[in-house]
Amino acid sequence: MWKPDRQSRKPVYEQITDHLEQRIAYGEFPPGSLLPSERKLAEQLGVNRSTVILAFSELRALGIIESRSGSGTRVSQHKWGATPRHTPNWKRYAEGGSFLPNVPFLRRIREALQQNPSLIDFASGELSGDLSPLNEIAALMREHHYASYLGYVDPQGYMPLRQALVAYLDKYRGIQTTESSILITSGSQQSLFLITQCLLSPGDAVAIEDPSYAYSLPMFQSAGLRLFRLPVDHDGMCPDDLHALYKKHRIKMIFTNPNFQNPTGMVLHEERRAKLLEAARELGLPIVEDDPYSLTDYNGLTRPSLKSVDSTGSIIYIGSLSKIAASGLRIGWMVAPNAIVERLADARQQMDFGLSVIPQQVAAQFLSSEHFEPHLDRLRMQLLYKRDLLIEALQKELPDAVQYEIPQGGIHMWCKLIPEIHDAKLLEEAIKHGVVFVPGSVYGSDSGFVRFTFARAKTEDIGPGIARFAKALRTLTP
Amino acid sequence: MWKPDRQSRKPVYEQITDHLEQRIAYGEFPPGSLLPSERKLAEQLGVNRSTVILAFSELRALGIIESRSGSGTRVSQHKWGATPRHTPNWKRYAEGGSFLPNVPFLRRIREALQQNPSLIDFASGELSGDLSPLNEIAALMREHHYASYLGYVDPQGYMPLRQALVAYLDKYRGIQTTESSILITSGSQQSLFLITQCLLSPGDAVAIEDPSYAYSLPMFQSAGLRLFRLPVDHDGMCPDDLHALYKKHRIKMIFTNPNFQNPTGMVLHEERRAKLLEAARELGLPIVEDDPYSLTDYNGLTRPSLKSVDSTGSIIYIGSLSKIAASGLRIGWMVAPNAIVERLADARQQMDFGLSVIPQQVAAQFLSSEHFEPHLDRLRMQLLYKRDLLIEALQKELPDAVQYEIPQGGIHMWCKLIPEIHDAKLLEEAIKHGVVFVPGSVYGSDSGFVRFTFARAKTEDIGPGIARFAKALRTLTP
Repeated sequence: MWKPDRQSRKPVYEQITDHLEQRIAYGEFPPGSLLPSERKLAEQLGVNRSTVILAFSELRALGIIESRSGSGTRVSQHKWGATPRHTPNWKRYAEGGSFLPNVPFLRRIREALQQNPSLIDFASGELSGDLSPLNEIAALMREHHYASYLGYVDPQGYMPLRQALVAYLDKYRGIQTTESSILITSGSQQSLFLITQCLLSPGDAVAIEDPSYAYSLPMFQSAGLRLFRLPVDHDGMCPDDLHALYKKHRIKMIFTNPNFQNPTGMVLHEERRAKLLEAARELGLPIVEDDPYSLTDYNGLTRPSLKSVDSTGSIIYIGSLSKIAASGLRIGWMVAPNAIVERLADARQQMDFGLSVIPQQVAAQFLSSEHFEPHLDRLRMQLLYKRDLLIEALQKELPDAVQYEIPQGGIHMWCKLIPEIHDAKLLEEAIKHGVVFVPGSVYGSDSGFVRFTFARAKTEDIGPGIARFAKALRTLTP
Repeated sequence: MWKPDRQSRKPVYEQITDHLEQRIAYGEFPPGSLLPSERKLAEQLGVNRSTVILAFSELRALGIIESRSGSGTRVSQHKWGATPRHTPNWKRYAEGGSFLPNVPFLRRIREALQQNPSLIDFASGELSGDLSPLNEIAALMREHHYASYLGYVDPQGYMPLRQALVAYLDKYRGIQTTESSILITSGSQQSLFLITQCLLSPGDAVAIEDPSYAYSLPMFQSAGLRLFRLPVDHDGMCPDDLHALYKKHRIKMIFTNPNFQNPTGMVLHEERRAKLLEAARELGLPIVEDDPYSLTDYNGLTRPSLKSVDSTGSIIYIGSLSKIAASGLRIGWMVAPNAIVERLADARQQMDFGLSVIPQQVAAQFLSSEHFEPHLDRLRMQLLYKRDLLIEALQKELPDAVQYEIPQGGIHMWCKLIPEIHDAKLLEEAIKHGVVFVPGSVYGSDSGFVRFTFARAKTEDIGPGIARFAKALRTLTP
């Protein structure tokens, strides 16, 4: 991204003037369109707001932009060409379609992280670089020849990866399946997108956990689904209300994340698993089992999957490498009945024509390599260490202000604040203090809850990050 | 994919019986679900239909499946568990959602290619392996360290790739832009998907070429768009009707593929470009310029892009590496005004959380490497050679039965058959004779047109492929 050259003899405001004039001439900001605010531009370019104000006034003097109080700064309609030109009303297009924008809190967090990479990040649901098997993957990429075929692959995904997953699912998740039941997707995200867009119709009712990752995904609302809640406590989701919900709302599907749930970190209790499966069977309801965290169990226990005891093909199982290896591989998978896999493979083909073959080859090699198990062992120990650093910091900085259950796996910790604090105010204050988290309301909970993800921040940043959070919190509590 | 072991002492039908029982037990075919037909299974497994019939009768005797005449073979409801279990009605789910399945002809072609890889392929719109820069990419992958970062990347795409594209677009397409105006997508396909899903609303009217690639994409119909045609002849799309269409139907967007158009191979004439741009400007209409083929010009000419003369930011420009390097990289890009790029980056984030960073790194390296230009030169010569082989074969095998214009770039040739032949019958006959093409009606034309793609088939297969096609054609003409 362009930044002003502070060594240049040309004043910074002039550089910004020229830069903006160029971007406007290139069509990035067409005639009539809104420019970013002075505040936002100043943050992006790393300059004072007064410098941007000066650059804007130059552009205004040149007739290139116009400002009207209250409606921001726009590119002039009349500058570009002898006669006034009609240009598309891009704003109207950007507001078109049925696809909703991301949750405002998540967009705010993303923006804050882009503008200030030194923020301590308890928000992003991913592993830090040192937890990912970067050296192992680099070694595999040196050893193997990955560019031997670079055409479109089978709509269900690269066959050797599906073969590797058949062995993986059997060994680590107790799931017996065949390559023909597997669809490779761009992380779990695309599996959920395909399910919500292609198997359900607007107005359909679904049961989801409360709190749930699903609330952070506008795709559920974009698909026009009605969401009904099954509360989560320290034994995971409670399925008792399922029959009543079904009777009242004709539930069409159940979404659950049974192991180390996002955001609570809790594990679904054995008895509740049996109840859930029994209820789903009685009602003929499919379950979507989202299972990204099971292999992170700090004690090395094998947490069973629901799919492993699914004798009637009632479960769509979703997994991925994002939380156990690297999110940047964008490798996820779905195990589902034949009719579903074929339907979704066909739909996915239309959306993006499938995933690149290169990361699929890398993933297949990694899953079958001798690197995989030692990596998992190391990952579990490192996550446990980070979890303990987080707890230690919370006890030190906020001994009476937070309540939580201690997770035994996964990457998230769910905290209740005492007293309850306004979500938006706390997030803004935290950003000011140099730390980000996700407010609980993003996951459908009431105000006053916080999700801390401890996998992304560097080990040495966890303590200072919570100290910053505590400081932000104190500015808001009397 | 599993195949029976012909060396085994266990009879093939027994192996198939066991294999199917296992897949049913794994939930791939849940109770009550439909099994593939005997014909389809026989093709998949490479056995006689009678072998499958025998395996089915074994499964029927075991009570695992049930056949009813006219409604196919289903997995029994009562086998799996002591009491009848309710299982989800997967068929109903597979028919849910607003997303339409792929065009039947394209599904038929895909199925035929999967079942018989020895078919000569004039259907797939991609390069053969020897036209792709596999060695160059392999060399880059050995030289560079690609796994240094494997987290989620910026929603607009990996910054070094966007930087490489700024230079590429300037040098090869005359387009001046900045990284902030570029969105990296999974090929052109995902760019089109994002535009049709997120910028347009159901009921919106759009103008597309006739014939056009757009007709082969159910995404236009899935988004509820009304399609209006601008005819294509040997000077490309004729924009004369635009004003009338706009007046009558309130056109919202124009889609065009100006250089070496898919499927006709024609180039938009200079005068028509000016007319199109002028009309779009007058009406304030955005143009989507799909530009995958320009760099394949056999004479090495630089065909201008519409975007290069777009002073008002009215054009969304789409490009990709699929037709000039390798479709399996899944790297495409969009250049659009700021408001559009931000909106679509946000939506894409929700669909798949972005592309894997590895192919983006590879693409950035390749575009900036000394391999790129020599590869392009070689590609152009090889495509010209293949085009000439195709023309030679058509002249030899079908001197009076086809009419065509000779393309000067791209990978497609568009032929009119004399006399007109029924599309579906011809395709089935061609598959029987060992060759596939795409019937013209897939692109919205009348019956009796054929698209031959000459980039995918091996050089030595082009002549024999057309001989097979001619034979198939002769069986249908008196």
